[in-house]
Amino acid sequence: MYIALDAMGGDYAPDTNVKGAILFAKETNVGVYLVGKEEILKPLLEKYDGQNLPIEIVHAEETIEMDEPPSIAIRKKRKSSMYIAGKLVREGKASAFVSAGNTGAAMAVSKFIVGSAEGIERPGIAVAFPTKKGKPTVLIDVGANVDCRPRHLLYFAVMGHTYVKEILKSSDNPKIGILSIGEEEGKGNDLVKDTYPLLKMSGLNFVGNAEGRDIFTGDFDVIVCDGFVGNVVLKTSESLGMIILEMIKQEVKKSFLSKIGATLMLPALKRFKKKADFAEYGGAPLLGTKGTCIITHGRADEKAIKNALRVASDFVQTNFNEKLIENINTLLPEGLRE
Amino acid sequence: MYIALDAMGGDYAPDTNVKGAILFAKETNVGVYLVGKEEILKPLLEKYDGQNLPIEIVHAEETIEMDEPPSIAIRKKRKSSMYIAGKLVREGKASAFVSAGNTGAAMAVSKFIVGSAEGIERPGIAVAFPTKKGKPTVLIDVGANVDCRPRHLLYFAVMGHTYVKEILKSSDNPKIGILSIGEEEGKGNDLVKDTYPLLKMSGLNFVGNAEGRDIFTGDFDVIVCDGFVGNVVLKTSESLGMIILEMIKQEVKKSFLSKIGATLMLPALKRFKKKADFAEYGGAPLLGTKGTCIITHGRADEKAIKNALRVASDFVQTNFNEKLIENINTLLPEGLRE
Repeated sequence: MYIALDAMGGDYAPDTNVKGAILFAKETNVGVYLVGKEEILKPLLEKYDGQNLPIEIVHAEETIEMDEPPSIAIRKKRKSSMYIAGKLVREGKASAFVSAGNTGAAMAVSKFIVGSAEGIERPGIAVAFPTKKGKPTVLIDVGANVDCRPRHLLYFAVMGHTYVKEILKSSDNPKIGILSIGEEEGKGNDLVKDTYPLLKMSGLNFVGNAEGRDIFTGDFDVIVCDGFVGNVVLKTSESLGMIILEMIKQEVKKSFLSKIGATLMLPALKRFKKKADFAEYGGAPLLGTKGTCIITHGRADEKAIKNALRVASDFVQTNFNEKLIENINTLLPEGLRE
Repeated sequence: MYIALDAMGGDYAPDTNVKGAILFAKETNVGVYLVGKEEILKPLLEKYDGQNLPIEIVHAEETIEMDEPPSIAIRKKRKSSMYIAGKLVREGKASAFVSAGNTGAAMAVSKFIVGSAEGIERPGIAVAFPTKKGKPTVLIDVGANVDCRPRHLLYFAVMGHTYVKEILKSSDNPKIGILSIGEEEGKGNDLVKDTYPLLKMSGLNFVGNAEGRDIFTGDFDVIVCDGFVGNVVLKTSESLGMIILEMIKQEVKKSFLSKIGATLMLPALKRFKKKADFAEYGGAPLLGTKGTCIITHGRADEKAIKNALRVASDFVQTNFNEKLIENINTLLPEGLRE
C-alpha cells in the first residue's frame, strides 16, 4: 500500500511533511509517495535519515499557494504536488491522498481529480468534535457541499455512521441527528423538514433533531448538516476556542494572584488547547471519494502529518469504501439510493 | 412611558422579575407594567418595597411554561402574562415588551401579537457577541426567520446598522458583513450569492463576506445571516463557552499544582464566564416590531431583568423604530424596499 502525500502543502512544508512521512514509515512500514520538487525533497529525506524507508519521491514542478483559488488547482496548475498526488490515487498507484495545503484546493482535487466513489454523488467532509462525554461527535458536511438536497444529507448520515463504526470505533450503532433549531420534529428549515422523514425511514439509528449545543454534549455520534452551516459552525468553534483562551488570559492579567494561578495551570491549558484543535487529530476525511482523502490543517506539525497518514492507512486497511457502499445498500431503502 | 414586563416568565420568575423591575424603576423612574397573577405579584411587590414606585400590576391568569410550543402562546393561552404584555404594546398602552420566558413563545408573541412595524415584513432577532477588540459584533437573525430571501437579509442589515449606531453606539458607520464560507465575492450558498449584490448596491458600509471566525474578531459591527444558521451559531457558541470551561476544569483536576492555579484564577474565570454569556447583556432585541421587544435568557437574574428593561427604555427614548424606517428609506434604493 502507498499513500500519496502532498509534500509541499502546509505552513511548515516541506520540512515538516518529510519528517512526518519518516515518522509514519518507521512506525508502520506502509509506503509513502512524497510528491513535490525532487531537488528539495531528496536532500531533506537524506538530512532526516529517511533513505532506507519505503518512501519514494514523485516529482512535481508546481506548488499550490495557500491563497490561490481552488479552481487553479484543478484547471491550471496540473503539475502541482497536490494535483499529482491526487492523480496517483485516481490511477490506482496510491490508495490514499493526504494534504495539509490550501483546504479549498485540496477539496477540489479530492472531488474532481480523485473523484467520487461509485454510487456516491456528493462526498462530504467530516470533523470529529471533542465532547463532554469524551467520545467524539462527527459533524458532516463541514464545507464540501454548499447547497444540499435531502438525499445528500441522508448519504452524509451513512458516511458518518460508517466513519464512527469502522474508523473512530466509538460506537457500534452510532446515534444520528440532524442539525436544526429546536428538538421537536417539524422544527427547522425546509431542508431539515424534508430530510427528517427520510432519515426516519432508513435503517440508521436516527435520534431526531440536534441543536447547536448538542455538538459538544456527546449525546449524538453523528450530526448531519449542509456544508454551508457545517463550515460556519466549524470556523465559529475553532475561533471561539482560541478567543476564549485569549479572553481568559486578559482577565488573568488583571490580578497578580490569577497570574500565578495561570502559570500553575499552564500545562493543563496547553493540553486543553490541543484537545480543542478539532481538526488536529489526523485531519478531516472527505468521505465518499474513490480513494481515501485526508485534509489536515495548514499548521499541521510532523506529528499531525504522521497522524493523518495513519488515519489514511486505517481507512485503506478497513476497506472503508466497501463498507460504506454495503451500509448504503443495507441501511437505505432502495427508493432512497442514488 | 410604560414597559410591559412578563412577570411570570423565566427560571426564577416571578421573584427575580419583581426585583428587577424595582431596581429599574428606582434608577430611571420609567413605568413598568408587571403582568401576571395579581395574588402572587402584589405580596412580592410589598415584600421588596416596590409600592411607591411607578410599577403597576396587570393581572394575567395564565402562564406559558418553558416547554410549551410557541403556538400555545398565541392561539390557546390568551390570558397568559406573555400574551397580555404583548397586547399592551399592540394597543399602545405600553411602549415595550420584555420577557425572560419561553423564547419561542416570546418570539411568537412579539411577531404576531405585538406585530411587525409598518414597512417591515420580517423582524429579526439580534445578539451582540463580545469580540477580541472589545466592541461587540451583532449577529442578525439568530432565529426569528428560518428560511429567508435576499430582501430579508438586506433588511436585517439595516436593522443591525441602526441597532449598532443608535443603541450600542459602538460605531457611527457600522461595517456590515454577510455570513459565508470564504472571503471572496461569489463564495457561499445561493442565498448569500443573491444577497451580496443587493448589499453592495445599498448605502450601507458593506464590507463583504464574513466567516464563522469573524464573529469574534471585531472586524465587523454587523453580520447578517438567515435565522437558521444564526440560531445554530448562537447555540453552538453558548454551549462551547461552557464546555471549554468544563474541559479546562477536567484538565486542571489532573494535577495538584493546576488545582491551586485554578483556585487563584477563579475570580478571573468568573468574570470571563459572565462576558461569555452572550445573551446576558440586557437581552436580545427583536428588531422591526411595532413596539420594542426584548427577549432575555430564561436564567436571567434581577440585574439581567433590570438591564433588559433599561435597554427597552433606550429603544423607546431613541425612537428606534422611526430611525429604522428613516434608514431603510435613505440606505436602500427604492427598488429594494418592501
